[in-house]
Amino acid sequence: MTAYACVGQPLPKADGIEKITGRTVYMHDFKLPGMLHGRIKFADRVSARIVSIDTSEAERVPGVRAVITAHNTPEVRFGFLKDNTALKKDRVRQYRDEIAAVAATTPEAAEEAVRKIRVVYEDLPAVFDPEEALGPDAPLVHEADPRGKPLEDNRLRLPWKVEAGDLEQGEAAAVHVAEGEYDVGWVTHCCMGTSGCVAVFDGRGDLTVYSNTQIPSLAKTDFQEALKAMGVRGRVRVVNAAIGGGFGSKLDTYAYEYIAILLAHRTRRPVKVEFDREEEFVATSPRQPARIRVRQGCDADGRLTFRHISMVLDNGAYTSWGATTPTVMMMPATSLYRVPNVRFEATCVYTNNTYCQAMRGYGTPQVTFAIETNLDELADKAGLDPYEMRLRNANEPGETTPQGFEVTTCGHRECLEAVAERLDWAGKRGQGEGGGRKRRGVGMACLLHVGGGAKIYKSDGCGTLIKMDDQGYVDVFSGSMDIGQGLDTVLRQIVAETLGIGTDRVNVIVGDTDVCPWDVGVHASRSTFVAGNAALGAARMIRDQILAFAEQLTEAPREILDLRDGQVVCQEDPSKNLPLEKLLYKAHFAKTGNTMFMASHFYEPDTRLLAGDFKGNYSGTYTWGCHGVEVEVDVDTGHVEIVRYVAAHDVGRAINPLLLKGQVYGAVLMGIGYALTEEMIFEQGRLRNANFRDYKILTARDAVPVETVIVETDDPAGPFGAKGIGEPGLVPTAPAIANAIYDAVGVRLHTLPMKPEVVLRALLDRDGGPGPA
Amino acid sequence: MTAYACVGQPLPKADGIEKITGRTVYMHDFKLPGMLHGRIKFADRVSARIVSIDTSEAERVPGVRAVITAHNTPEVRFGFLKDNTALKKDRVRQYRDEIAAVAATTPEAAEEAVRKIRVVYEDLPAVFDPEEALGPDAPLVHEADPRGKPLEDNRLRLPWKVEAGDLEQGEAAAVHVAEGEYDVGWVTHCCMGTSGCVAVFDGRGDLTVYSNTQIPSLAKTDFQEALKAMGVRGRVRVVNAAIGGGFGSKLDTYAYEYIAILLAHRTRRPVKVEFDREEEFVATSPRQPARIRVRQGCDADGRLTFRHISMVLDNGAYTSWGATTPTVMMMPATSLYRVPNVRFEATCVYTNNTYCQAMRGYGTPQVTFAIETNLDELADKAGLDPYEMRLRNANEPGETTPQGFEVTTCGHRECLEAVAERLDWAGKRGQGEGGGRKRRGVGMACLLHVGGGAKIYKSDGCGTLIKMDDQGYVDVFSGSMDIGQGLDTVLRQIVAETLGIGTDRVNVIVGDTDVCPWDVGVHASRSTFVAGNAALGAARMIRDQILAFAEQLTEAPREILDLRDGQVVCQEDPSKNLPLEKLLYKAHFAKTGNTMFMASHFYEPDTRLLAGDFKGNYSGTYTWGCHGVEVEVDVDTGHVEIVRYVAAHDVGRAINPLLLKGQVYGAVLMGIGYALTEEMIFEQGRLRNANFRDYKILTARDAVPVETVIVETDDPAGPFGAKGIGEPGLVPTAPAIANAIYDAVGVRLHTLPMKPEVVLRALLDRDGGPGPA
Repeated sequence: MTAYACVGQPLPKADGIEKITGRTVYMHDFKLPGMLHGRIKFADRVSARIVSIDTSEAERVPGVRAVITAHNTPEVRFGFLKDNTALKKDRVRQYRDEIAAVAATTPEAAEEAVRKIRVVYEDLPAVFDPEEALGPDAPLVHEADPRGKPLEDNRLRLPWKVEAGDLEQGEAAAVHVAEGEYDVGWVTHCCMGTSGCVAVFDGRGDLTVYSNTQIPSLAKTDFQEALKAMGVRGRVRVVNAAIGGGFGSKLDTYAYEYIAILLAHRTRRPVKVEFDREEEFVATSPRQPARIRVRQGCDADGRLTFRHISMVLDNGAYTSWGATTPTVMMMPATSLYRVPNVRFEATCVYTNNTYCQAMRGYGTPQVTFAIETNLDELADKAGLDPYEMRLRNANEPGETTPQGFEVTTCGHRECLEAVAERLDWAGKRGQGEGGGRKRRGVGMACLLHVGGGAKIYKSDGCGTLIKMDDQGYVDVFSGSMDIGQGLDTVLRQIVAETLGIGTDRVNVIVGDTDVCPWDVGVHASRSTFVAGNAALGAARMIRDQILAFAEQLTEAPREILDLRDGQVVCQEDPSKNLPLEKLLYKAHFAKTGNTMFMASHFYEPDTRLLAGDFKGNYSGTYTWGCHGVEVEVDVDTGHVEIVRYVAAHDVGRAINPLLLKGQVYGAVLMGIGYALTEEMIFEQGRLRNANFRDYKILTARDAVPVETVIVETDDPAGPFGAKGIGEPGLVPTAPAIANAIYDAVGVRLHTLPMKPEVVLRALLDRDGGPGPA
Repeated sequence: MTAYACVGQPLPKADGIEKITGRTVYMHDFKLPGMLHGRIKFADRVSARIVSIDTSEAERVPGVRAVITAHNTPEVRFGFLKDNTALKKDRVRQYRDEIAAVAATTPEAAEEAVRKIRVVYEDLPAVFDPEEALGPDAPLVHEADPRGKPLEDNRLRLPWKVEAGDLEQGEAAAVHVAEGEYDVGWVTHCCMGTSGCVAVFDGRGDLTVYSNTQIPSLAKTDFQEALKAMGVRGRVRVVNAAIGGGFGSKLDTYAYEYIAILLAHRTRRPVKVEFDREEEFVATSPRQPARIRVRQGCDADGRLTFRHISMVLDNGAYTSWGATTPTVMMMPATSLYRVPNVRFEATCVYTNNTYCQAMRGYGTPQVTFAIETNLDELADKAGLDPYEMRLRNANEPGETTPQGFEVTTCGHRECLEAVAERLDWAGKRGQGEGGGRKRRGVGMACLLHVGGGAKIYKSDGCGTLIKMDDQGYVDVFSGSMDIGQGLDTVLRQIVAETLGIGTDRVNVIVGDTDVCPWDVGVHASRSTFVAGNAALGAARMIRDQILAFAEQLTEAPREILDLRDGQVVCQEDPSKNLPLEKLLYKAHFAKTGNTMFMASHFYEPDTRLLAGDFKGNYSGTYTWGCHGVEVEVDVDTGHVEIVRYVAAHDVGRAINPLLLKGQVYGAVLMGIGYALTEEMIFEQGRLRNANFRDYKILTARDAVPVETVIVETDDPAGPFGAKGIGEPGLVPTAPAIANAIYDAVGVRLHTLPMKPEVVLRALLDRDGGPGPA
């Protein structure tokens, strides 16, 4: 592959020093003059009729400037199915429903006022189990859709179904079949920065929302709609404060944002709503729990002949964008490994649980846990080494998968091989049973993810504006966002490389809808690929403008001119080389020039919106990975220790290996938490462990070394060959560990997290007794 | 002329409500976390050697974080001739020289520390009169130029000289000649917001300066150079806080900005330096005083045959961009009225007075006072009515002036006629002598100004970026600045008109060098013309993109499509009309589209840099005006009362008549202040009236009604026909009043301001005695 000056360099994050020296302005540091503090009164009931809301006492708290309810504000609907409202009027459907809100001059006054709001409820029947919720006698979470049409059951009218090949034929051709049911529960993003926003109207009625959203452009449209509902004629601007973690939690607008808008409009003052840690746990939306049934089979050689996946997802009480995760779950379901005959169907169900949302991996961690654990079971049945089984079915460059994904580059096999080699698979596999009370085992699991965006919205594009000043300083305005993943640095590298200048000359501006062009949002690991291509396209225009001008100045043909090291380089005649600054000066100031270099570019991947039959090429490229892990299981306690962890990823090209490894490392740790410790414990719809300790988030002490293997496949569609890599590191972690536990102690675990009591229970169940003597 | 939907509407200022409700963030409201307060120790000597600076006591003041002098910081040179330094090392040349500076946690601590800095001086001879300073024995203000080359006298090496035609021939052809010497002193801008800035370095060493500069792009380059001098590798961003008045005062960088940068770099904290009112008077640079000799003559018919102007300007101790005002003074000198033979020469002289700077009109108020007063005197000699004299010599469309200005549209005659008619010139002229102790008179004066930029820098361009979102909201990033003149609103109108949408859909972003493209600065009344054309060009690109897409959608040819009222209008078949939002949705989201509309445009007027022989067309268009005034002079007190004021201006086209009249009104009041009351009183280089009361700024009580006549000549080069109009309203005010005073009481005044004691002295001098009995 071509070697580059900036691309491929392990540069530290451009905003790193600001962050470690505490100068970054996060939402919690963000203040505006005259700003009020908003606070929300949550229902704390799971299903009830709201009989009355008495705010009179709250209004008398000194410092209170407004108390709003659904009764004194316009109805603002939001969410993917518009089944949610900013403030609830008659009915509570989940314990975190927003009943009222206060704006006051201090957070303390706001809190006191919220405490003084008196709500009278009349409890209604509730349902918490999605399969129960599908039953004929289940209480309805919503009696009607947002248009008033009565609903007959709790099943969401969402079309998540795809089928390819002939399932029956695939079943018939199978010699070995594995079938299982896999249960995954709620986990949440645990962003270090809790959610919050500041809303403010200016004198013209234009609204600015300072928010840590991951979707500034879509949020702008949502807020614009809210203004319409409020009867306010004004523009909307969304500005991002620095985000202390996104991970999908901010991929939709939330009630608190509309509440801040309503309070700001009512008080004509800036209003900030920010969550404390408990509210963050309680009032933001976690990853969906799912019950996933997998049935897959292979022929005598271990080649997959079919796969059938069906699942029920607990949607909770309202529908966010996260309800579309099955569109992405389909991907590994149909296309991880070569499987000719596939069927996937997902049912989303309203319950009185907390409503769910996107989270890193967007459904694929759930479904990959099921597929990859089940595949190990199938290998077992077929008498094949799971590694060998995976190799035989590995995806290949050039294939079109049953769902219609066009695979260009594919490093699936290389990732498998790298993991097997690094982990000494052959030497370690199947040795676990030998030892004493602590048994070791190895396991692996693979992943398929979008690496070039994911067209699950009408546009998957990103706009970029770029300008270069007459001294060679460049500003790039990207619609995308740096949410900590390092996009800022990656775009600097892409643009600097294209223009032959140092990255210190490039400035990246993101997170302001007034300044930055449209982008669908930071999701689907799309930013390096889509925003990278958008920036690359814009930078190439500048490059072309410069070289066209250089052609005039040097009288050398365009084809032999290049930009390198801050110079126009004439490849055949170095005496014609020209410092870029000299050219820029002439372009701007000479009579011949009088121009400055600026460009705009909107990059839309050439992909198909995944809808209807859900077939077609919906990403610009795809990425594979394989994780291998060696664990040590304490058979007395059920405690699982990670001994070694290898993560191999097909990244296309590493624009910045340092940040890339950071992404993989962070994702793997998140994956280990998902696998072994993290869970939200709900009882009758109420969260019982709304803090880090009881939630059991991994801490620095739990961090394990992760060996990252970067497999570069130089994707022709990626910017300098790159694919997206933000989420994949989290996807195969849980099944790799589950498979390693099996190798170590011989028990198959079908639920997450695989906490000590679960492992121990499985050991005891298998060994037929209530614990060892 | 074509009628437009947005252009021509008297819309209120877009930022008006923010300002009147006190929400605008001016520099004084602007804070950053951890910000320190900087304060400067000024010399308070006019010419001295600095023997020693003792900062030890200052450093011990609690809260002080840094005390800097030229001895512990790198030398930062700045100014038009680079003859100034941020901090002075060995030598004081003016009483406001910056000797040291302090950064402290509170303004009070900074002030206390400044008081405790001990400086030992050794006084040196000084010179305050520019003509004296030209004498052979005058003390040298600068002994050497910035490169160390010894200087032999105080004359600045600046080439302000232009000559056209044959002066001797013109003299010979003259039947009547008037000659006079006109003296104008110092006035200052009196911005309601005093000067200030905040400098801050981020973790990468990149510098942001929040400043109320009028020249963000040039200031960026200047600060970038300062970083180089400081050995700091970093980028520079200049961001404007809202400006409480510019008027040319912020057309150059000042020492306080470099001092803030040095303090911020030393302390690694944001540092704010802001002036109190006294500092604003003392430490910013006023309009240059000048002694102007005018000699002009006409033939028997009153047609001008020659004009010869020479002047000496007091530059003060250092050289700012304002020293280039003679380039602009040349314009009326050579080209106001048709004069075939002209000579202009200006000498700028270093003195130990405060150094001077640009101020609204950029030299033309000074020279126009001389020309237009002298023209009245010439009319007198020729026995002609001054109005008739002016009409006979009025400029005409299509002429090329002796200096090479290419006149396209010209409303000079219309302006003259409008004033004569409105003022009832024929009825009132020459009646003044009749009355009692209060005598009335009328006078008029004309102006010529650049109306299409002024190429006195290597580029007179402005860049614009523009983007439209999929709902039809538009953001325009202009390199220009809204400094209170209403550019924001005007650009909204230009862009809205071009795109057939409402102005509430258009947002204008200015004042951030990261975001906004290059622009030479807000001067020369250029913003409506140059920034307007830049925005227009960019908006037209968007329009073209939209119409090209509309052509596909409607299958109607491009030529019959138009954008109006938020629709694509098909002029021949209204059934094909298409709401813009629908088109935008299709463009962004349809398979055929997948694009968003963005564009960039750099507009450079097709003009010539005024240098060398100082001939050529240096503005995109020119503007004329005529002011007429009726005054009442109290012959007992010398007090002059404005009875009526008519201001007629050739504006090309009024994009926004409301804001245009605001500009004229404000300028006329500033002109009346210049004419009658305002002056900075210097004694031995020290300002003695550094406050509004003693400076005698006009207040709301002094405001007089101004009748504005808008003459529209629909300039082909202007955006929708517009010319610039920011400065002209100030230019002919003083001579119009001087001429009216003459008409009222028969005395010719050659100095400004024409305060009561001056008028009275002139009356007494003429009447030969020390006051009436």
